[in-house]
Amino acid sequence: MTTGKINVSVENIFPLIKKFLYSDHEIFLRELVSNATDATLKLKHLTSIGEAVVEYGNPIIEVKIDKEGKKLHIIDQGLGMTAEEVEKYINQVAFSGAEEFLDKYKDSAKDSGIIGHFGLGFYSAFMVAEKVEIITKSYKDAPAAHWTCDGSPEFTLEPSDKTTRGTEIILHIAEDSLEFLEDGKISELLNKYNKFMPVPIKFGTRSEKIEQKVGEFVATEDKDNTFTTVEVDNIINNPNPAWTKQPSELSDEDYKSFYRELYPMQFEEPLFNIHLNVDYPFNLTGILYFPKMTGDLQIQKDKIQLYQNQVYVTDNVEGIVPEFLTMLKGVIDSPDIPLNVSRSYLQADGAVKKISNYITRKVADKLKSLFSENREDFEQKWNDIKIVLEYGMLSEPKFYEKAGAFTLYPTMDGKYYTLEELKEKTAPNQTDKDGKLVLLYTSNKDAQHSYIAAAQDKGYEVLLLDSPIISHLIQKLEADNENLTFTRVDSDHVNNLIKKDEEAISKLSDTEKEKLKTELESVISDKKYTVQLEALDSQSAPFVITQPEFLRRMKEMSQSGGGGMFGMGNMPEMYNLVVNTNHELATTLLNSTDKSHQEALVKQALDLAKLSQNLLKGEELTAFVKRSFDLIK
Amino acid sequence: MTTGKINVSVENIFPLIKKFLYSDHEIFLRELVSNATDATLKLKHLTSIGEAVVEYGNPIIEVKIDKEGKKLHIIDQGLGMTAEEVEKYINQVAFSGAEEFLDKYKDSAKDSGIIGHFGLGFYSAFMVAEKVEIITKSYKDAPAAHWTCDGSPEFTLEPSDKTTRGTEIILHIAEDSLEFLEDGKISELLNKYNKFMPVPIKFGTRSEKIEQKVGEFVATEDKDNTFTTVEVDNIINNPNPAWTKQPSELSDEDYKSFYRELYPMQFEEPLFNIHLNVDYPFNLTGILYFPKMTGDLQIQKDKIQLYQNQVYVTDNVEGIVPEFLTMLKGVIDSPDIPLNVSRSYLQADGAVKKISNYITRKVADKLKSLFSENREDFEQKWNDIKIVLEYGMLSEPKFYEKAGAFTLYPTMDGKYYTLEELKEKTAPNQTDKDGKLVLLYTSNKDAQHSYIAAAQDKGYEVLLLDSPIISHLIQKLEADNENLTFTRVDSDHVNNLIKKDEEAISKLSDTEKEKLKTELESVISDKKYTVQLEALDSQSAPFVITQPEFLRRMKEMSQSGGGGMFGMGNMPEMYNLVVNTNHELATTLLNSTDKSHQEALVKQALDLAKLSQNLLKGEELTAFVKRSFDLIK
Repeated sequence: MTTGKINVSVENIFPLIKKFLYSDHEIFLRELVSNATDATLKLKHLTSIGEAVVEYGNPIIEVKIDKEGKKLHIIDQGLGMTAEEVEKYINQVAFSGAEEFLDKYKDSAKDSGIIGHFGLGFYSAFMVAEKVEIITKSYKDAPAAHWTCDGSPEFTLEPSDKTTRGTEIILHIAEDSLEFLEDGKISELLNKYNKFMPVPIKFGTRSEKIEQKVGEFVATEDKDNTFTTVEVDNIINNPNPAWTKQPSELSDEDYKSFYRELYPMQFEEPLFNIHLNVDYPFNLTGILYFPKMTGDLQIQKDKIQLYQNQVYVTDNVEGIVPEFLTMLKGVIDSPDIPLNVSRSYLQADGAVKKISNYITRKVADKLKSLFSENREDFEQKWNDIKIVLEYGMLSEPKFYEKAGAFTLYPTMDGKYYTLEELKEKTAPNQTDKDGKLVLLYTSNKDAQHSYIAAAQDKGYEVLLLDSPIISHLIQKLEADNENLTFTRVDSDHVNNLIKKDEEAISKLSDTEKEKLKTELESVISDKKYTVQLEALDSQSAPFVITQPEFLRRMKEMSQSGGGGMFGMGNMPEMYNLVVNTNHELATTLLNSTDKSHQEALVKQALDLAKLSQNLLKGEELTAFVKRSFDLIK
Repeated sequence: MTTGKINVSVENIFPLIKKFLYSDHEIFLRELVSNATDATLKLKHLTSIGEAVVEYGNPIIEVKIDKEGKKLHIIDQGLGMTAEEVEKYINQVAFSGAEEFLDKYKDSAKDSGIIGHFGLGFYSAFMVAEKVEIITKSYKDAPAAHWTCDGSPEFTLEPSDKTTRGTEIILHIAEDSLEFLEDGKISELLNKYNKFMPVPIKFGTRSEKIEQKVGEFVATEDKDNTFTTVEVDNIINNPNPAWTKQPSELSDEDYKSFYRELYPMQFEEPLFNIHLNVDYPFNLTGILYFPKMTGDLQIQKDKIQLYQNQVYVTDNVEGIVPEFLTMLKGVIDSPDIPLNVSRSYLQADGAVKKISNYITRKVADKLKSLFSENREDFEQKWNDIKIVLEYGMLSEPKFYEKAGAFTLYPTMDGKYYTLEELKEKTAPNQTDKDGKLVLLYTSNKDAQHSYIAAAQDKGYEVLLLDSPIISHLIQKLEADNENLTFTRVDSDHVNNLIKKDEEAISKLSDTEKEKLKTELESVISDKKYTVQLEALDSQSAPFVITQPEFLRRMKEMSQSGGGGMFGMGNMPEMYNLVVNTNHELATTLLNSTDKSHQEALVKQALDLAKLSQNLLKGEELTAFVKRSFDLIK
C-alpha cells in the first residue's frame, strides 16, 4: 500500500471544484457515465486498429444503487487503468486523458465519439460524495488497482483482486446528497443526460415474460407453460438515435417514432422534419421538427435539445439556432459548439454564426422542396407553420430572400397563392387608377365580416392574414415591392378601397350634402368619428365605420413591439363615419321634419354601424338591445 | 530580479480558469474592482483599530483606458502588497486573501464589507488579457514590487519605483477582447456591476463649470466671470446606496430617487417600497418596490437586482424571492446567498428558504400597515397591485393566511371591501334560501353590462374581479369559507342568481309553457342553447343567454393552467337560453298564427340575446345589421 498526496495546490482548488465547477450538482452522473463511455469507446478503437489484442465483446455500463450502504456504483467494461495510469490521470487534477488520447490517435480516432474535454469531470463526484473509490483493471496485463479518497487531498492506492476488465467507481454519497440514492432520481438523470449515449447503460432490472422453448417446439396446448418470468437487464438508453443515422436509412415512421422518443408526453405528431448533417467546416448532426404552432410564441421556445457526442448538454440553444427557429423541436449534436461560455460570446463567435446560418439555409431549402414536391400538403400545413416563417422573414434577411418562393397567402375562399401568383391573379381587377396593385386582407374573418362580404361582392380577393406580427411583414413587403400596397377591408368604404377612375353620382346635391352633414354632426357628438359623405351604391349600407390603414397599422406595429412610430401604440382610435348619400336613409334623414325622430334614426344607424365594427359595448349595447326588444314585443 | 514558477498544477488549471471559470468574460472587471475595494476597506479597518499607523484619507479607485498601448489600468490606494505578499497571495492560485483576513480579524472586521470569497478573482484577468502586471506598494515600510505574467505559469517579480501606497493592475488586452478598450464598454460594465460599490470609482474626467470666488465675495455684475470650466474627476458610483442606510434616515423622496437611480429609463414612479433589514439568522438588506402592474406577468419578471456586499451579482432572483414577488423591482443584498449553485439546490437550501420566508412575511406586514395607516391610498393602488397579491395568495400558504386582512374586493360602485366587510354588508340581501351567502361578480364590466345592470336593479352588490387568475382564487376562497359562493352575473337569470323562497307566478299555464317551449325548440336548431322557460318580471328581458358558473369556471381554470378538471379547457361552450314567460313577447309568440312571422320574431330575439352575451358575430351579425337597417330606411 502506498500513500501519497495529491498535488499540493489541490488543497485550494478542491473546495472550488466541489462548490463552483458546475452550477448543477446532478451533472456528476453525466460526467462519470461519459468517462465510462469514453473508456469503452477507446477500447473499441484500440481493438479495431489492432493495438489492443482482446475481445471487445458487447460491453455495457452499469449504474447500481446500494441504498443500505449509501453507495452509488458506475461500472464499465472499457479499457481500465493500471496503477501507473491512475497516478497519472486521477492524481493529477485537470490532466485530461481524453485529450491526450485524441492527440495520440488523432487520425484514427477522429470519429470514435470520445467525449471527455478536460480532466475535471471525475472530480465532480466529490460534489455529492464524501468518499470515492476506483477499482480498475486494465486491458493490459497488469494487476488491478484500488484508489480511495475521502475528499481531502489525501488518497490511498493499493492492489485489488478485481479480475474483470474495466473500471468501477464507487461513490459514498454525502448526507446532503442522499437524493442520489433514490431510484427515481437516478432514473430521471440517466433519462435526461444519457438517453442517447453510444454505449448501452443498464440501470436496475425488470421482470419480463419470455417464451420458453421446450425442446424443439412450443407446447401449444398449454400456453401458460411456454412462458416463464425472468429478470432481464434494463437498458435505459438508445445507443443509436435517429440523428446519428443517414437520412437514407430512415423512413417517415422512424422520424415520427424518434419524435415520440424525444417527447414522450407529446401527443401531437410533428408536421415534418429536417435532418441536419454537415462535416465541414464544422461538425453538426441533428433533426429538427416543425410542431403545430399556437399563437403564444413564448411558451413554445426552448424545446430543442443540444447534445455533444450524444451527451445531453442543455435545452437552451439561444445563439446557436436563429431565434425564429427556437420554436421548433428536436435535437442538435455538435462537438464544435463551445459550452460554458456566455451567450454574448456565442453570438459573436464566427463558428457559431456559421452553424446558425447553415441551419437557416437548411430549413429554407427543406421548406422549398416540401412546397415543390407536394404543394397541397404544404398548403394544409401552412397555418400551423406560418408564424415561424413570418417571424423568420422579419428577423433573418437570408431567410427572407429564400422565403418568397414558398410563402403563401391564403384567401377567404380557402385558396393559397404565392405573392407572384397573387399579383398575376389580382392585377386585372385590383390595380388602382395610379397603377398600384392593392391587395385586400382581413385580420379577423368574424369581426370584419360585413366588410369582407362587401369586398367580395365587388369581385375582389380578400386575404386572411391573421398572424400577430403580420403588420410588420406587410410593411416590409410593401417596401420591397414597388407598386404594391396592402389594405385591410375595413380601412375605407368598399368603393374607395381600390380607387378607380369612376365618377360617383350622388342623388344629393352639394347643398343637400352640406345640410345633411351639418345635421349629422350636430347629433353625433363623439369626436372620434369624422363624418364623411360619399355617393355609394344605393344598396350599400347607409352608415359604415372605417379606420384608415396607415394609422391603424402603425399603431399595431408599435403595440406588437419594434417598428411603427414612437408612441403610436397609445394614440386614441380614430374612425371615419361614411354616410352613403345614395341610400334611402340619407334622403329620409334630409327630409325629416321631426327633429327627435331624425335624431333617433341617426343614433340607431350609428349603433348598427358600430356593431359591424365591434364598437357597440357596455351601456350603449344594453340600451340598444332593450330598445330593439321593445320594437318586437 | 527573481524568476520562479507558479505552482505546477497551475499549468493544467490555468486554461480552465481562462475558459470555464466564469461564463461571462466581462466579469473580470467586477472581480478586479472588488479586489481594489477590499484592499481599500482592509486598510480602513486596520487604521481604525490602530494596526496601520498611516493616514487613511479619501481613497478612490481609478479605472483608466490606454487605447494606444492596448492597456487597461485599475489603480487603488488601499493597503498594497509587499513582494513577500505577492508571492503568497498571487503566486498561490486559489489562496484567498480575503478569507485569511476575515479569519484573522473576525471580531473586528465583521462589518467592514470585505468582498473576496476565494482567490481566483484576480486570475479572471487572463480571460481578456495576454499579459498582466501588478505594481504595488504596501502601507508597511517595504519596497514596491512589480509582478508580470504573460498567461503562462511563468512570472517575473522585481522591485518597482512606485512611491504611493496601493496597487495598480495593468491588463494588456488580448486581440480577441479589444472591446474592453472602449470607453462605452467599460462604462457600461462599471455601471452594471460597480454602481453601488462602497469605495468611489473614478473613470474618465468631465468638464464642469464651477463658481470661482474672487476674494470674499462673488462679483454679481459680471456673472460670466464668476465661473470657470475645470476638469473634475468623474466618480461613476454611489458608495452609499439607500439600502445600506437605516429606514429612519430616509424620506419618501429618498426612496423614489433611489428608484430612479436603479431604473433610469423608467418613467413611472413606484407605488410604495419595502425596506428589508435583517441581521439574524442571516444577513440581508434591500429595498423592494411595487411598480404598477399590467396584465402581462411574464414581461415584468426579473427586475430585482441581487448584490453581495454592494457588488452586483445577477438579476435572476428565482428561488431567493418567492415567485409571486419576482414581479417587484428593487435590490436585495446578502452575503448569505450561495452563488454559482443550481436553482434546484437553492430551493432546497434551508438558509435560502428562510430568506424567502422572511421576504414574504415582510411584504405581508408592509401591506397590512399600508392598509391600516391610509386605507384610501391603499384602495387607490389596489388595481395596480392586486395581480401580485392574488398570485401570492394562490402560491404561498403563509402569505394567504396574512392576506385576508388587506385583500380588497372592488364593487361596481367603486367601493373596496375586505371579505369580512363584504360578508357583513351583503348578508341581509344576498343570502339564499339555503343560508349560503352569494357574492356576485363580473369579469368584464363592458361585456357583461346588461347582466350587471339587472343585478344592480335588484339591489345586489356586483364585484369587479377581472384578474386573469381570479377563477383560481375564487375556488380557493369558497373552499376555505363555509357557506360562501361566488357567482358571475351572467351565470343565471337575475331571479335565480340568488335563490330565495319566492314563488314565481307565471302568466302562462303549464300547457302553454310546454307548447311555447316546443315551438321555440323547433326554431332554434343550434344545440349549444338549452331553452329554459322562467317566470321573471314582465319588465325583464324576454330572452337572456346564461352560462352556468361551475362549468365556465372549471373551463377557465383549466385554460389559465393548473386546476380545473383535466381536459375541460377544450370543452365546447354550453349556454342556457332563458325565456321570460311573463314578458309580452312570450304571449305574442304563443298566440302568433303566422308561422314565418313567429320564426322571424324568435330569431330577432335570439340575436338580441346573443348580442348581450357577445355571441353574435360574423355572417349572423352582418345579416342582423342589414335587416335592422332595412327597418329604419
